[in-house]
Amino acid sequence: MERIPILRMGEFLLVTIQVDMHDRLAMTLQDDLTNKIQQTGASGVLIDISSLEIVDSFIGRMVANISAMSKVLDAETVVVGMQPAVAITLVELGLSLPGVRTALDVEKGMQLLRGALGAHEEEAQYAACEG
Amino acid sequence: MERIPILRMGEFLLVTIQVDMHDRLAMTLQDDLTNKIQQTGASGVLIDISSLEIVDSFIGRMVANISAMSKVLDAETVVVGMQPAVAITLVELGLSLPGVRTALDVEKGMQLLRGALGAHEEEAQYAACEG
Repeated sequence: MERIPILRMGEFLLVTIQVDMHDRLAMTLQDDLTNKIQQTGASGVLIDISSLEIVDSFIGRMVANISAMSKVLDAETVVVGMQPAVAITLVELGLSLPGVRTALDVEKGMQLLRGALGAHEEEAQYAACEG
Repeated sequence: MERIPILRMGEFLLVTIQVDMHDRLAMTLQDDLTNKIQQTGASGVLIDISSLEIVDSFIGRMVANISAMSKVLDAETVVVGMQPAVAITLVELGLSLPGVRTALDVEKGMQLLRGALGAHEEEAQYAACEG
């Protein structure tokens, strides 16, 4: 059965989307990813779409869903590697990927996640001090 | 045009092979990867084959070629994520991936590369002291 591999990189998970997504593959990815977050206790998910030349509303919705599910499991999602043409098309189609962070490449995505985690921990410490 | 994305992760490059390889795609990957090593000065290449259920002599040769080319450009190659069934088939086919290092997953592959680089630097220092 076709599956999209999920790679563990320290505290983050990396998903590289290279093939055309269809319903069943998207469902499998959601299942696999949520399971993997739960197993590994990952705090961030990076979705690399650098090889996608077209991002339609189906992919947009899938990414938004994954982001929302990860959020519930306490993991932040960052979409990385979007091609310029894809960004143009997304805006022209009126798809703005609400609630999804983006970064230029995997390295910048990891920096963003580390920054977000740092801020998160500081907030938690601050809340603990206040309480 | 179809391409396999090459992701930069610090000093290493990560290639995830998810699609069926054919001649032209393999050539494009070799071109892209050697260019990327030259541009980034990467010292290691990780090839993730966790989503491949079949590794035939064509893929085996491609991996061996990539490894040899990277070596010439002073980068080590590690193949990661091989499925157990693939390992069985490789041995049964008499394909032993000569000159290619393997690791269980991306994290272990990175550790292996870091270890190899450390040893490499120590050797260089030793040679410098000897000289």
